[in-house]
Amino acid sequence: MRVLKMVVTYDGTEYCGWQIQPNGPSVQAELSKAIAAVTGERTNPVGAGRTDSGVHALAQIVAWPTESRLDCSVLQRALNANLPAAIVIRRMEEAPADFDPVRQAKWKLYRYYLHDGAVRDPFLLRHVWAVHRRLDVAAMQQAAAALVGTHDFGSFETHWPNRATSVRTVRTCRVVRCGDLVSVDVEADGFLYNMVRAIVGTLVEVGRGKRPAGETASLLGAGKRGLAGPTAPAAGLFLVRVLYPTDVAQTEASELK
Amino acid sequence: MRVLKMVVTYDGTEYCGWQIQPNGPSVQAELSKAIAAVTGERTNPVGAGRTDSGVHALAQIVAWPTESRLDCSVLQRALNANLPAAIVIRRMEEAPADFDPVRQAKWKLYRYYLHDGAVRDPFLLRHVWAVHRRLDVAAMQQAAAALVGTHDFGSFETHWPNRATSVRTVRTCRVVRCGDLVSVDVEADGFLYNMVRAIVGTLVEVGRGKRPAGETASLLGAGKRGLAGPTAPAAGLFLVRVLYPTDVAQTEASELK
Repeated sequence: MRVLKMVVTYDGTEYCGWQIQPNGPSVQAELSKAIAAVTGERTNPVGAGRTDSGVHALAQIVAWPTESRLDCSVLQRALNANLPAAIVIRRMEEAPADFDPVRQAKWKLYRYYLHDGAVRDPFLLRHVWAVHRRLDVAAMQQAAAALVGTHDFGSFETHWPNRATSVRTVRTCRVVRCGDLVSVDVEADGFLYNMVRAIVGTLVEVGRGKRPAGETASLLGAGKRGLAGPTAPAAGLFLVRVLYPTDVAQTEASELK
Repeated sequence: MRVLKMVVTYDGTEYCGWQIQPNGPSVQAELSKAIAAVTGERTNPVGAGRTDSGVHALAQIVAWPTESRLDCSVLQRALNANLPAAIVIRRMEEAPADFDPVRQAKWKLYRYYLHDGAVRDPFLLRHVWAVHRRLDVAAMQQAAAALVGTHDFGSFETHWPNRATSVRTVRTCRVVRCGDLVSVDVEADGFLYNMVRAIVGTLVEVGRGKRPAGETASLLGAGKRGLAGPTAPAAGLFLVRVLYPTDVAQTEASELK
């Protein structure tokens, strides 16, 4: 038995999310079908981030066990040929037998794209939130910086029962403009339900001048969803990177050089 | 009565083309509906290029007559608010009363995007033709250069009755690589039905080594569609620019400086 680790990219627009659902097509189900077609095995591959309906991934990390003896490159090509065009496996490699993409994930990075040009861009409509009026990125960046650290993010969590704690560590929260595109990067050791989209909804209110930048810190620990901004639409959200202890060690080692 | 000239951008994926059709939504019909909603007038705006089902436009030129006295900027904003997100008016200005976007067009530029990375890109799938294997761009460029000039392009025309002549002047036919994207620009004084897509289908056969680059010239004047390559899919095609005599005069004047 081998465990395979895959880097999977998908446009989530037409999927009800990563996880298999009774009410619509999911990325997990498409991968499961492709694996069955190629290997004859029935398995539900495990993804590091349970992306919601309409959310995309540049690099979702997925693991699955197989008895297949095919080379990774052969399996990758065969699976890609059996997947819809909106889902693609970018890389595939052997993983340790105990690899758990969910529990072993150390940092997950999500990126959200906003478009604030006066005229919308029809070619980006599935991949951004078009907010129409110019955002004040400096104010947004000030508000974002206040979220970095270990805090109770309960104000940024859509109600979800049975969560033991709403404390998470955010190590990056950064707002960058590139022309009419504004990206919001949030990297944390874990995310509450809709946390990035609630952060972005709040930052957009700051960028529109509807909420003072200095107020963001007071939302931490307050634990009231109503105090923060609305949940941003799914279309702009991308799972960008998942780091594991070995990746982190490598990154730190290369930074020491 | 004023005549207004608009620059319109659209993602054509979900439209049956520019022109009003009985069998599906068209860009012309959406514009017509938005104009009726804003001005109360019934008119079918005229577009410079009759793009086919699934073909996009970065800058379609559209003209329509109106009795409205609203400023162009006000009309533009009101129409954009009444259009689907996939269609947007980027610019609107007054035009001479006799402005005819079809007959007065001097040069039209179409661009076709191919993606030839080993791994497809899910975020580009509505906007490129993914050909999977690396294309020989130097050979394609050699074949493309042979098409420049005034020729009978009948071999690149899908059958379409009642065409007086299949002679057209191509002033640019250029193939450029940028990473895994290969663009094919074709600028001509007019286009036969499916002409760009037949040229691209032929150039892709050259890029795959299935057809010698030097053979392209022999297709000109042969007048047999079967001799050229297949018609490339609609998704990769964009109407990029339409030049009118005044634009051309301005361009030439600026080049003289």
